[in-house]
Amino acid sequence: MSNRARSLFLSVLALSALAGRAPADEGMWLFNKPPVEVLKKKYGFEPSAAWLEHLQKSCVRFSTGGSGSIVSADGLVMTNHHVGSDVLQQFSTKEHDLLLDGFYAATPDKELPCDDLYLDCLWSIEDVTARVMGAGKESMSPAEKSAARRSEMSAIEKESLAATGLKSEIVTLYQGGRYHLYRYKTYTDVKLVMAPEKQSAFYGGDPDNFEYPRYCLDMCFFRIYENGKALRPEHFLRWSKQGVADQDLVFVAGHPGTTERLKTVDDLRWVRDNVLPLALQRLWRREVQMQTFAGRSAENARLVETDLFSVQNSRKARTGTLEGLLDPRVMGAKIAAERDLRAAVEADPALKAKAAGAWERLSASRTTAKSIYPRFLALGGSGMNMGSRTFAIAKDLVRLAAERDVADGKRLREYRDSARKTLEIGLYSPAPVDRGMEIDALASALSRMAEALGGEDPTVLVSLGGKSPRARAEELVLGTQLIDVAVRKRLAEGGAAAIAASTDPLIRLVRDLDPEARALRKRWEDEVDSVERECYAQIADARFAVLGDKTYPDATFTLRLSFGQVLGYDENGARVPATTRIGGIFERSAERKNVPPFELPEKWVKAKSALDASTPFNFVSTCDIIGGNSGSPVVDRAGDVVGLIFDGNIQSLIGGIAYTEEQARAVSVDSRAMIETLRKVYGAGKLADELQAAPAPQSGN
Amino acid sequence: MSNRARSLFLSVLALSALAGRAPADEGMWLFNKPPVEVLKKKYGFEPSAAWLEHLQKSCVRFSTGGSGSIVSADGLVMTNHHVGSDVLQQFSTKEHDLLLDGFYAATPDKELPCDDLYLDCLWSIEDVTARVMGAGKESMSPAEKSAARRSEMSAIEKESLAATGLKSEIVTLYQGGRYHLYRYKTYTDVKLVMAPEKQSAFYGGDPDNFEYPRYCLDMCFFRIYENGKALRPEHFLRWSKQGVADQDLVFVAGHPGTTERLKTVDDLRWVRDNVLPLALQRLWRREVQMQTFAGRSAENARLVETDLFSVQNSRKARTGTLEGLLDPRVMGAKIAAERDLRAAVEADPALKAKAAGAWERLSASRTTAKSIYPRFLALGGSGMNMGSRTFAIAKDLVRLAAERDVADGKRLREYRDSARKTLEIGLYSPAPVDRGMEIDALASALSRMAEALGGEDPTVLVSLGGKSPRARAEELVLGTQLIDVAVRKRLAEGGAAAIAASTDPLIRLVRDLDPEARALRKRWEDEVDSVERECYAQIADARFAVLGDKTYPDATFTLRLSFGQVLGYDENGARVPATTRIGGIFERSAERKNVPPFELPEKWVKAKSALDASTPFNFVSTCDIIGGNSGSPVVDRAGDVVGLIFDGNIQSLIGGIAYTEEQARAVSVDSRAMIETLRKVYGAGKLADELQAAPAPQSGN
Repeated sequence: MSNRARSLFLSVLALSALAGRAPADEGMWLFNKPPVEVLKKKYGFEPSAAWLEHLQKSCVRFSTGGSGSIVSADGLVMTNHHVGSDVLQQFSTKEHDLLLDGFYAATPDKELPCDDLYLDCLWSIEDVTARVMGAGKESMSPAEKSAARRSEMSAIEKESLAATGLKSEIVTLYQGGRYHLYRYKTYTDVKLVMAPEKQSAFYGGDPDNFEYPRYCLDMCFFRIYENGKALRPEHFLRWSKQGVADQDLVFVAGHPGTTERLKTVDDLRWVRDNVLPLALQRLWRREVQMQTFAGRSAENARLVETDLFSVQNSRKARTGTLEGLLDPRVMGAKIAAERDLRAAVEADPALKAKAAGAWERLSASRTTAKSIYPRFLALGGSGMNMGSRTFAIAKDLVRLAAERDVADGKRLREYRDSARKTLEIGLYSPAPVDRGMEIDALASALSRMAEALGGEDPTVLVSLGGKSPRARAEELVLGTQLIDVAVRKRLAEGGAAAIAASTDPLIRLVRDLDPEARALRKRWEDEVDSVERECYAQIADARFAVLGDKTYPDATFTLRLSFGQVLGYDENGARVPATTRIGGIFERSAERKNVPPFELPEKWVKAKSALDASTPFNFVSTCDIIGGNSGSPVVDRAGDVVGLIFDGNIQSLIGGIAYTEEQARAVSVDSRAMIETLRKVYGAGKLADELQAAPAPQSGN
Repeated sequence: MSNRARSLFLSVLALSALAGRAPADEGMWLFNKPPVEVLKKKYGFEPSAAWLEHLQKSCVRFSTGGSGSIVSADGLVMTNHHVGSDVLQQFSTKEHDLLLDGFYAATPDKELPCDDLYLDCLWSIEDVTARVMGAGKESMSPAEKSAARRSEMSAIEKESLAATGLKSEIVTLYQGGRYHLYRYKTYTDVKLVMAPEKQSAFYGGDPDNFEYPRYCLDMCFFRIYENGKALRPEHFLRWSKQGVADQDLVFVAGHPGTTERLKTVDDLRWVRDNVLPLALQRLWRREVQMQTFAGRSAENARLVETDLFSVQNSRKARTGTLEGLLDPRVMGAKIAAERDLRAAVEADPALKAKAAGAWERLSASRTTAKSIYPRFLALGGSGMNMGSRTFAIAKDLVRLAAERDVADGKRLREYRDSARKTLEIGLYSPAPVDRGMEIDALASALSRMAEALGGEDPTVLVSLGGKSPRARAEELVLGTQLIDVAVRKRLAEGGAAAIAASTDPLIRLVRDLDPEARALRKRWEDEVDSVERECYAQIADARFAVLGDKTYPDATFTLRLSFGQVLGYDENGARVPATTRIGGIFERSAERKNVPPFELPEKWVKAKSALDASTPFNFVSTCDIIGGNSGSPVVDRAGDVVGLIFDGNIQSLIGGIAYTEEQARAVSVDSRAMIETLRKVYGAGKLADELQAAPAPQSGN
């Protein structure tokens, strides 16, 4: 790992986008600002507008978090097993565990409708920066400017929805430097088609997560319906006939969640010294508590499985980011880059006048943030997140009632009319709620609040209601009626009066906590978020002026294009090849004595002799991805599917703050392994046929 | 659990020792202040001086932490598997895992000598309060008084060692209210005789830990040697012929570690709001990191196993204490008790003059503590504990060299002449050190320091040496020579000059950190510990004056006597019987589908038909125990062994701050299960014969 850290350092230095040079295979590019020059220069490839539109409109974003793509003329959607796992878990019962056992609907009537799931497909992008920025007048304070702009954004979104019928969301890019209006086609009628057993999707479990070489069949298939019939999509991705080879140029189109690469040095320090340590404390705590809960019974283990995976996954990712931020060499490179940019600004009077004090004001807002953050977090942040589903339902009901009478543009964002549909899908979801799990989560949140604020803090005393955290959690969860969807609907319809009259213990608790939680949110938005947007907008302008408009914005859970090569790497003096083979999973299982999480799935043992051991299984590429990219298609120059992103290797975990190329890699399932196993392990030849079918000619391609 | 919390509350109220009533079965009593009255009144039992001496001198304290007892005429020692596990792990290799597989030496030549282990047997107790207190003069500041008393304690210990040849340690009781000189026979020649496989000792693993009903054979046997021959002890415990029955009076003699029952309300608040939250943060973090390390390979899992158990165990125990402290009803009872005591003090002018301001000064010292604690903890506290064995070795070498030229009474306690032998056993232990595990532990400690102090703190920058935490840990651990015992000895012999000249990276790091760590320790001792001792001594005097000398002191890892009844309890409306049977483990395994950690050990499967399923396996009693009591013998009125303490149930976890009787129980292995399994599962009939042999007449009994 010393070698690893050293090479990473060199990469950071060499690849900083701020240096203005072609940034290797770096970048999560906007579809309306693709990296045309570097692709042409390095790979001799020029993506046409049609090529881009086709790829864009074949991609979808999962409402449960994660990416996917439409891969057949009948609306088949490909994503990861771990993106579909929420759905798989919802379908599971004590008797029939779809997550563990897998699922295959050989005929359409066997497909399972996913009530809570919807998919967003990006249909158009419009730059509305001038209109949004213009709403904030010079004479206003940052908080006033921010409020004026939020209101303007809401108006733009509403107009757009009315004009186009498409879900319309403004995306804040470059930390406030640009505002783009994204319009989505939203597919709400989605059915589950196929998922392998978790043991093959997540082979090697947590120990192998973020490692390479890997042997995971992390895939899952859904189908979109429209008006009761399988969708005949305008665009879908064809399946590559030959698959990828070493050093091939490939592309990833997906929805990377969050990066912090353009953050100022002081902002990174804030993340390093405050945000990440507190986030890790939460994750360690929940991981241990979920493991303990899971240990009590097989049923508990089943219930908590996907949440536990998500916690473990975040924990590993954040550990990697923190490790990077604590490396004085990585921070040294960031400091040098910022110094250069600021020197360029200082040297130009016009620039200086525009960006004057932005860095300092941003740093000052971090001091404010530091004083609010622990309390803000203890009350669950903006969304009052207590890790409990029933508490979240109570919170939505209380806030929905309060916001209903407020003008749309002045509401809390998530209760605006444009977000109503999304909100209701979650709020009225009939997904079963396990009281034991709820008690565990809520007890943890109540204790965490007390640990953070002290056992005699008035808010803590109100929350505990005279009981210990666990006893109180039991009282709340056993006493609430909100597990019944009809009760939720009645309360929502009853509005503020119904909420005020409710004796439900969770509604009462949220009512008690909401004023302080809102006040903290308001302070946070006014004194931290608004200042941040304002300052970053200035810094972004300065950066555009110095470096040109050739950089990509930090990730925002919206559609981006990455590119790179299928490429192995050196580690501890040895070469890690780019591709693993299906035969490798049998070797790894033998080497680890078939002990969990390395045991072979039963179906694989049976299919062993039929399988072609030399079939490529997983491969790595230099594509620039991060959490949220899970389920993204990997396509070749022709735009055809050659793989399915599901992970990054451990060296890529620093990706949140810096792209590195020497060892950091994106990890994909090879399209050929999907076909081979669909046919020979899962008896799903029909599905393989659908994927490999020669498609009808594509519109716009 | 609502029921559980409610009954606990009632117990706390009813049983408070401060109420001055016979405190039910409460108490960890001093052997020189046994609970004669309550035993006589409640159970009609009067322990004779000989009965007490016999039990006292049959007990031993394990240097690795935990309790035990001598149980045969040939120096056989009984303790828990989880007390012996450090030793079992040391003997284990990748090929032969004693911890997992168990061990039995059928003949003396097969017994394994345990180099690092020693056992202390309490031989005499002397009250030296007057002499210690007298060393602190009225004119001195608390820090000066404390230093004078520490110096006097060191002189007393030294005199005693010289006069008796016995290891002599002054125990601070009642938070500084009393000082007793304990003299120990120390047995350093100890061999491993028998241990079952971990799967039977720790059946049900972490999920069942602290739960009841239980099915654990948590036992382990050693033998003491003296002058090359098996010890012929003056005292040893006989094996009960008939075993216990429901409601029998039983006794536990062992070494409870720490309780905080006599703490003031403000001190409990400090524990609740600062000490426990920070301790839990560390434990969650290490539990997750150790699980991750263990997941990478079977060998890693083996290496980290005992440390992981210890972390999980502490985590559960502290969670229980925090849950209790966060219960407003528990704290309410504490507040009421303190109010009564203080009212009594206020009402008596003489008392008031003596105890005036003690509570206030103690509270003020907690404010100081709060400002030092996070930094003190980040640097590892008094012992610079970084969770790494090699770092600890470097620390001992650096501090040993520095302390050698200081007068004995002024040294850091652990480097005094009287502690030299103990220190050297650890320092020169040839136990293998795994570099991978060391890197993991040290990377965690370095990151933890940075998270606590911020990435640009000067101490953090020195510690990281220009690298990320993991890269730095690799550099330190791969670069150190201290894994070689000969190198340690040479450095220790070379003294300060050798330390100053050393280029060993770990020695250099400790050299860099030691001045600040010492300065923090000094501040802590002067401004927190000294004030605490001073104030608690005053409060203890006041408590004696108000309530008489009938209370027991908080636990101090020294020998105590507890008593109670074999008694089941009610939970969720059903009765939990006191005793489980051997047949129960087979039922539990079937119910949990034999999935880890509920799978049956192979030897048990084979022995099933031979075993008498009705043999009592584990039982619970109302005896007052806590961590450190593990391995304590449970004896009957005759002083004969009927069981072996190994755990408390989940309701007992509040024991650190309050004894409760309604549901809290101590959990033991039944002596009859030990005999039954030694004979029928482990082919150790000879060992069973030795335990059940009619003993020679005992001296002093």
